[in-house]
Amino acid sequence: MDEYEIETLEAVELESPVLIEGLPGVGHVGKLAVEHLLEELDSTPVRRVYSQHFPPQVTVDDDGIELASAEFHAISPEDGQDMLVLSGDHQAQDNVGHYGLVDAFLDVGDEFDVERIFALGGVPTGELIEEYDVIGASTTDGLTDELEDVGVEFRENEPAGGIVGVSGLLLGLGQRRDLPAACLMGETSGYLVDPKSAQAVLEVLQGVLGFEVDYGSLEDRADEMEDVVRKIQEMEGNASAPTDEDLRYIG
Amino acid sequence: MDEYEIETLEAVELESPVLIEGLPGVGHVGKLAVEHLLEELDSTPVRRVYSQHFPPQVTVDDDGIELASAEFHAISPEDGQDMLVLSGDHQAQDNVGHYGLVDAFLDVGDEFDVERIFALGGVPTGELIEEYDVIGASTTDGLTDELEDVGVEFRENEPAGGIVGVSGLLLGLGQRRDLPAACLMGETSGYLVDPKSAQAVLEVLQGVLGFEVDYGSLEDRADEMEDVVRKIQEMEGNASAPTDEDLRYIG
Amino acid sequence: MDEYEIETLEAVELESPVLIEGLPGVGHVGKLAVEHLLEELDSTPVRRVYSQHFPPQVTVDDDGIELASAEFHAISPEDGQDMLVLSGDHQAQDNVGHYGLVDAFLDVGDEFDVERIFALGGVPTGELIEEYDVIGASTTDGLTDELEDVGVEFRENEPAGGIVGVSGLLLGLGQRRDLPAACLMGETSGYLVDPKSAQAVLEVLQGVLGFEVDYGSLEDRADEMEDVVRKIQEMEGNASAPTDEDLRYIG
Amino acid sequence: MDEYEIETLEAVELESPVLIEGLPGVGHVGKLAVEHLLEELDSTPVRRVYSQHFPPQVTVDDDGIELASAEFHAISPEDGQDMLVLSGDHQAQDNVGHYGLVDAFLDVGDEFDVERIFALGGVPTGELIEEYDVIGASTTDGLTDELEDVGVEFRENEPAGGIVGVSGLLLGLGQRRDLPAACLMGETSGYLVDPKSAQAVLEVLQGVLGFEVDYGSLEDRADEMEDVVRKIQEMEGNASAPTDEDLRYIG
Repeated sequence: MDEYEIETLEAVELESPVLIEGLPGVGHVGKLAVEHLLEELDSTPVRRVYSQHFPPQVTVDDDGIELASAEFHAISPEDGQDMLVLSGDHQAQDNVGHYGLVDAFLDVGDEFDVERIFALGGVPTGELIEEYDVIGASTTDGLTDELEDVGVEFRENEPAGGIVGVSGLLLGLGQRRDLPAACLMGETSGYLVDPKSAQAVLEVLQGVLGFEVDYGSLEDRADEMEDVVRKIQEMEGNASAPTDEDLRYIG
Repeated sequence: MDEYEIETLEAVELESPVLIEGLPGVGHVGKLAVEHLLEELDSTPVRRVYSQHFPPQVTVDDDGIELASAEFHAISPEDGQDMLVLSGDHQAQDNVGHYGLVDAFLDVGDEFDVERIFALGGVPTGELIEEYDVIGASTTDGLTDELEDVGVEFRENEPAGGIVGVSGLLLGLGQRRDLPAACLMGETSGYLVDPKSAQAVLEVLQGVLGFEVDYGSLEDRADEMEDVVRKIQEMEGNASAPTDEDLRYIG
Repeated sequence: MDEYEIETLEAVELESPVLIEGLPGVGHVGKLAVEHLLEELDSTPVRRVYSQHFPPQVTVDDDGIELASAEFHAISPEDGQDMLVLSGDHQAQDNVGHYGLVDAFLDVGDEFDVERIFALGGVPTGELIEEYDVIGASTTDGLTDELEDVGVEFRENEPAGGIVGVSGLLLGLGQRRDLPAACLMGETSGYLVDPKSAQAVLEVLQGVLGFEVDYGSLEDRADEMEDVVRKIQEMEGNASAPTDEDLRYIG
Repeated sequence: MDEYEIETLEAVELESPVLIEGLPGVGHVGKLAVEHLLEELDSTPVRRVYSQHFPPQVTVDDDGIELASAEFHAISPEDGQDMLVLSGDHQAQDNVGHYGLVDAFLDVGDEFDVERIFALGGVPTGELIEEYDVIGASTTDGLTDELEDVGVEFRENEPAGGIVGVSGLLLGLGQRRDLPAACLMGETSGYLVDPKSAQAVLEVLQGVLGFEVDYGSLEDRADEMEDVVRKIQEMEGNASAPTDEDLRYIG
């Protein structure tokens, strides 16, 4: 296998699509958001990307064996812009691999003539969230304006640590290819898989792109997570917000 | 030395052989199983694979010095299918090396026209095993059916963490070459080198391939391991199953 | 993106410039020094270097998104020698990347015909500093003499651990290109971002190169740091020098 | 700089030389032995090897700056066989680098037509040594016999963990080039820089190669180390052998 391999699954035409990425990260916000899109809208898997920089691993499920990979799905929703959705279970395992992999992702985007990129993720706040704000970062003023119009917050020098991994490089390497890109980061405690944060991100994206999805299943999953938190709080005999000690990463 | 080097040891013809892999892993189940095959059946070393991704290490034994490598052995048993058996003391030390090494292994398999692959290993249960089930994962329905017939269990989404290392990639990269592959994983505590689990895996393999081997020496080794466990239990004044604390990896 | 990419920002002519490097390191001494130069003197960004060996990261600030990089700035001060100043937020993340990156930096230096190199940094003493000495290391006797004349101390076998990272390799790889190079290391506790040490280094450099800068803002920043230290000492009820326990890396 | 670079320092003719390696390792036995040879016998530096797999580091000493490297020295002693002596302060920092670096070392050996290799090192026993045995491992029966004649011990399956790093690969990769190679490992506690173990190794080598050296300075250094041990023992109020707790790596 080459260092990076792009496998064609199906030939699909998309009209000026937007690339939407949601790989694993803080609170699994991006991954949950993208998986929800794929559940709610009709999609066709179009490309799969393998890499020697993914873990040397296969997953086992009902469909059999799957080698570590990331997958692109084409969505042409009834309402709104066409989408090329990137999902998967892995990030690259080393620096050089991160750069090479995101270049491979952008090559796929070029094949489909994507006109801009939205990288979805979470931003950790360290405390449980009451109101789920979505923080934005973008490579063009146009995108910034458009996102502010639908309620995304652009805060000076936030996130303070920058944006790392695939989402960060989609912006950085996208910018080098003159491809407008924005990162939409749902606020999340950072301790829990966070379906509410994923919903907040999707609602913003919906405002920009115009698709229609139902949030029932995400809300159900959020309720389940709240039950988990409540139980932890009871076990600790502590009705207030859990401390860092209480909350380990639960998902 | 190149990144991967395949050395020819002897020219041997095999008829539609099956590739059987048993490199070090959980409970050394795969390694024990494969070493037992090599002890019990007549075998000829045919290829040795060196790699810059193996540890920078030589082993010292009666035969002298041996550079870190993996070795293929040809077996044409009286009963049953020909086998190309892969054994060794090392896995690759990095992700990229894992991918490259398994590609080299599959290249050797191609040379011998192997028609399918069985990767042998263990799956950790975290507790001492009473009944040694063998869990399966496979890339084709045909292989799954055949293995279920000889008692291998295929459980939904197991192993949960997927299959990592050489065994996992033999399935994943084998599938990409249209070479049917299955992983046979003997249940094992994960704390001890486990000859009983290795025997359970071999008995299943025997059911599929038809070779005949005696298990006396594996049973002796299992008895030795049980003595070790018993002594640990006594030292701890604890006649019941040892806890995680008692059991470190012993081999 | 290639493993290393040099982007031209602006075409600027410099006359026999000196290359001055100040990337992150002990006490952020080199980085503070170089940033102060860029604040106080007119500068033009001329080259930016990207690398797959930098972290896979973008920073977010008022100017938008910036992919991890290092930047060269041209300075032609009214008094003194022209300077090509290298600044940035990152070192390479692996050995091979360090070597390749410094070679890229030296290639940029060659483009501008730099005639020598000053790498700026800090040397940790493990205790709070009263008098800010500057330690030197150099690849030519001529440079050593010149630096001793302006008060730089050359101490036998110091720093004992050698010089690591970009500063070290600028000397080592510069020497292999017959480009005279020196490292100026301000003594610093190693626990704190140290503007006073940065000022000591700049004053020495000023003695060699002849530029004129005001140190007001660095002194303000040093006062702020001293307030921080004083507060820590009070919190510990300890008016004397803070211990290792008191002082973690603060900046 | 290339991944590996061999720099010619001086053109020297050697007659059927033996390659002797002593890079840092357990107890610094190999390094001490080789440095003692270079101090006691007339030697000429002939090649220097740089690598991107060495640490990104320069050392600072009276002679100025030195980029991380390994160095070959030619020795034509009055008595005994010519020697090509490999010394240095570093091992490679990653697996792939180890393999590539040793290949570069063997290329230099080929240039000088070395006819065999002695890799010098230490083998840790975990306790203070009374009698300094030297353990051997070799790639040919001829070498084994020759070394046994001068008192080297060849013990079944020792060292149990194999031989790692440059010494191990000189044997493993040397064997692949049909170049006879042996490793001479002085027993050492593993806690201390061990000049006595280095002397034991050199005395064995002297028996094979026939050179003449004085051991006064190594004995002085051994006395110093013993003073250090004694002081530690006194500080612990413990006149018997120091425990693992007492002895950290001291050198």
